[in-house]
Amino acid sequence: MFIILVYDFNVKRVGKALKICRKYLHWVQNSVFEGEISKANFVKLKTELNNIMYGDEDSVIIYMFRSKQYTGRQEMGLKKGGEEFLL
Amino acid sequence: MFIILVYDFNVKRVGKALKICRKYLHWVQNSVFEGEISKANFVKLKTELNNIMYGDEDSVIIYMFRSKQYTGRQEMGLKKGGEEFLL
Repeated sequence: MFIILVYDFNVKRVGKALKICRKYLHWVQNSVFEGEISKANFVKLKTELNNIMYGDEDSVIIYMFRSKQYTGRQEMGLKKGGEEFLL
Repeated sequence: MFIILVYDFNVKRVGKALKICRKYLHWVQNSVFEGEISKANFVKLKTELNNIMYGDEDSVIIYMFRSKQYTGRQEMGLKKGGEEFLL
């Protein structure tokens, strides 16, 4: 499946969260990731994030799609972090 | 069309950005919005955000879809802000 993940971690933990997400997904912009992921890796990703997140300070939102099916992606302003999107 | 919008604004401008986005979209979580939007309103939304954003500090990413077609949305951790999703 294809997912878009957006996180909001406390600055103390955001480095760890970034490292975890980059193992499984493409880093699109600052706190946004996307990519194809297997169900097994999806479970791993969520488990790893759960292990570091503070439920009362951090948050993650994940959109799931059967396939990469968005018709467009537009970016405005600063391109913070992120990497070339290779798909 | 259906869009998912994620922003990252400097704290000085995030209140204004929130107010603009809530005029057109549902506030899902912290910096994430989604909703059906007409092409005309989409242009208005982007223009209003452009008017307040500092290109070297703020960023916005928008995913566009023909229709609301994600198969699921999962949230982990704190539900910051946001409002009930009424669709």
